[in-house]
Amino acid sequence: MQGCPPTATTNPPSASVGRGTDSDSCPVDAASVAAWLSLAACPDARAHWWGARGSDFDPRARVELLRHAGISLPAPNDRRLARCLAWLEQPGNALVGWDAAAYPETLASLEDPPPVLFVSGDRSLLAALQVAIVGSRRPSPGGAEHAYRLARDLAQAGLVITSGLARGIDAAAHRGALAAGGAGPTVGVSGCGPDVVYPREHAELYAEVAACGLLVSEFPPGTTARPHHFPRRNRLISGLARAVVVVEAAQPSGSLITARLALGQGREVLAVPGSVTNPEARGCHALIRDGARLVEDASQVLEELSSLPLQLPVPRQRRPLATRPAGAGAGAGDGRGGHVAPPRPPPDAGPTRAVPAELPASLSSPSVRRVLAAMGTDLVDIDSVVFRSGLTVSDVSSILAALELSGLVWVGPAGTFQRKPD
Amino acid sequence: MQGCPPTATTNPPSASVGRGTDSDSCPVDAASVAAWLSLAACPDARAHWWGARGSDFDPRARVELLRHAGISLPAPNDRRLARCLAWLEQPGNALVGWDAAAYPETLASLEDPPPVLFVSGDRSLLAALQVAIVGSRRPSPGGAEHAYRLARDLAQAGLVITSGLARGIDAAAHRGALAAGGAGPTVGVSGCGPDVVYPREHAELYAEVAACGLLVSEFPPGTTARPHHFPRRNRLISGLARAVVVVEAAQPSGSLITARLALGQGREVLAVPGSVTNPEARGCHALIRDGARLVEDASQVLEELSSLPLQLPVPRQRRPLATRPAGAGAGAGDGRGGHVAPPRPPPDAGPTRAVPAELPASLSSPSVRRVLAAMGTDLVDIDSVVFRSGLTVSDVSSILAALELSGLVWVGPAGTFQRKPD
Repeated sequence: MQGCPPTATTNPPSASVGRGTDSDSCPVDAASVAAWLSLAACPDARAHWWGARGSDFDPRARVELLRHAGISLPAPNDRRLARCLAWLEQPGNALVGWDAAAYPETLASLEDPPPVLFVSGDRSLLAALQVAIVGSRRPSPGGAEHAYRLARDLAQAGLVITSGLARGIDAAAHRGALAAGGAGPTVGVSGCGPDVVYPREHAELYAEVAACGLLVSEFPPGTTARPHHFPRRNRLISGLARAVVVVEAAQPSGSLITARLALGQGREVLAVPGSVTNPEARGCHALIRDGARLVEDASQVLEELSSLPLQLPVPRQRRPLATRPAGAGAGAGDGRGGHVAPPRPPPDAGPTRAVPAELPASLSSPSVRRVLAAMGTDLVDIDSVVFRSGLTVSDVSSILAALELSGLVWVGPAGTFQRKPD
Repeated sequence: MQGCPPTATTNPPSASVGRGTDSDSCPVDAASVAAWLSLAACPDARAHWWGARGSDFDPRARVELLRHAGISLPAPNDRRLARCLAWLEQPGNALVGWDAAAYPETLASLEDPPPVLFVSGDRSLLAALQVAIVGSRRPSPGGAEHAYRLARDLAQAGLVITSGLARGIDAAAHRGALAAGGAGPTVGVSGCGPDVVYPREHAELYAEVAACGLLVSEFPPGTTARPHHFPRRNRLISGLARAVVVVEAAQPSGSLITARLALGQGREVLAVPGSVTNPEARGCHALIRDGARLVEDASQVLEELSSLPLQLPVPRQRRPLATRPAGAGAGAGDGRGGHVAPPRPPPDAGPTRAVPAELPASLSSPSVRRVLAAMGTDLVDIDSVVFRSGLTVSDVSSILAALELSGLVWVGPAGTFQRKPD
């Protein structure tokens, strides 16, 4: 294993953070961990299920609220819980929950953020400016070399390189960043539990990334690789990063899926061109034809980054039409061709509506009626509904989750909601 | 020399067209040819110097008019005239003047069209849909092979491939088109006289292009290669074509100049990417970063062509601000970055102005005053000025040329004019 140069991190990887010695991580009492594991098992979760950031967050209470709203949240079995608790005992390992200070804003602003991250290494990297480098698992020798050089040069410029720990371009990118030394560590996002190495020959790479950078997973310890995990991992790679650079990608390929997810998240997508005789370049060329920026080297990536606004944009997929410039047609002006999923049609802008007389039986409580009345007809954020309804944040967010599941509420951008027309 | 398959052309290359046997070419009496040679020697000529297309055009009268307007038009010496007359005697050679039916609209719509073309071969190709393929004179083996294949495939799809007869990509493109057989001939634009081969080792290529396609030059017979001829040749290559495909171009390079000229002419610029380790790909990548469309193969070129309007757009360089969408900043929205020269500021939109009392002595004739009065303050075309002034087209166009030279008239898009503010 390659040695890791000393760096001035706030959470040195050698410190034990598993037992709540650090305010950035969650306390590891078994009941809380079990609740986090229940939340982590929640499929297709949406940001508002976790409530507003900054509020007090009790994972056990949240599990109860969501179950009350009709969401199935199985409790972990004893073996799974014991494995997680044992993993948390290891130095450098931690559970970063939705409400932890270390939980990155980049992920909190996603539509479908994980409720909890299982991390190993330097958690301060979660908040660092990250550039993802992704690409083919079977790159050309030149492609792998270019990914290595690109990652090394960007890391030397102070950026954190994020990738997916896979064979090919991912591994080359992590290794390039590691070769840059302490200046730019690397974040590896796994599609398995944080204690499962996949592919197996990457054991040394995993160890180096955890020692000098950070391993991140949304899957609890002991989770093995499943095909459907990788699209979820990909959304975290692009979600953590400000920009995604694709170096060689066949068509179709997982890297192209990551690139499209990144566009949906409002991230910048950059692509490295290649020879027209290289089949692994075709995916990059397709991205460029669809509007991704062409980059040849680290200096051009830095140039693109310097032209981006400091604030992350609102995710694109759910931006309602009303927030777009007047006269812009579907997809017009964003230069992304067919990348971005068409925005949902906006709710009808009707007059203020009363609470409908007939609600599903599960939603016939007085609290639900108060929430609906508090929402009015406009796009509202959760704080406004809490203020107007007089209910707690927890109650309002679980009611909103139930209303969304029942099709009565439409989820807008950046944690906003709107009642659908009756 | 490769044999040329028979094609159903209107002007078979074997027919003599030098002595006015064809209405598409100009009569070759010595006085007319001498006048054409004088016009061809005119530096920095503008379209309106040649008058409206479709009017009767007498090259001798035009020489007189322009000389009267103060433009220096040296008469050819006897040797130059004799060489041109002898060249016109050869089968397949012809002089296509500004007013000939064969003079292509693609060139007539340029800001700086040549008054006359010296052509050898199948003149009907001037009106065919052409795609230019240009690139490095020192391409990689893969680049030359790709240009050959691209030209062959596009020619087989029925397009005419236009290029500059130079070493490298140009030659590969011509040869690819020739390899496609009769389906798609090729147009070679020369930076020398039509009877001068440059570079010398391309004698066979020149002969094949003339036999199966068309050689075009704006330089009279006997003109040798000069550095300043090649930018002029490049504007004809892009001017003749609907789109320009750049296959490998170093930075800086003549091919990039052609691409920028093409953008200024409103042509579509397409660029083939290459490996980031190939220095000859850097120019193409720069073009793509600046807004050129990335194309990998003939099918993508055809796709781009199919999305273009049938009508050629108005050349971009002189489009006045007033024709752009409200709110568009300089360069905004055209996706071309720094390519397109900023449009000239529009003349002040003042009230109708009288003819200024003081005109330069050379412009103090009653006809000049009638033209200025007829122009008013708006953008006008030459026909309106002719109609309002009662003068002939020839008189109006030579007066407009003199007024432009004197800085009193601003030249707008598509053959329009406007008086500058007093």
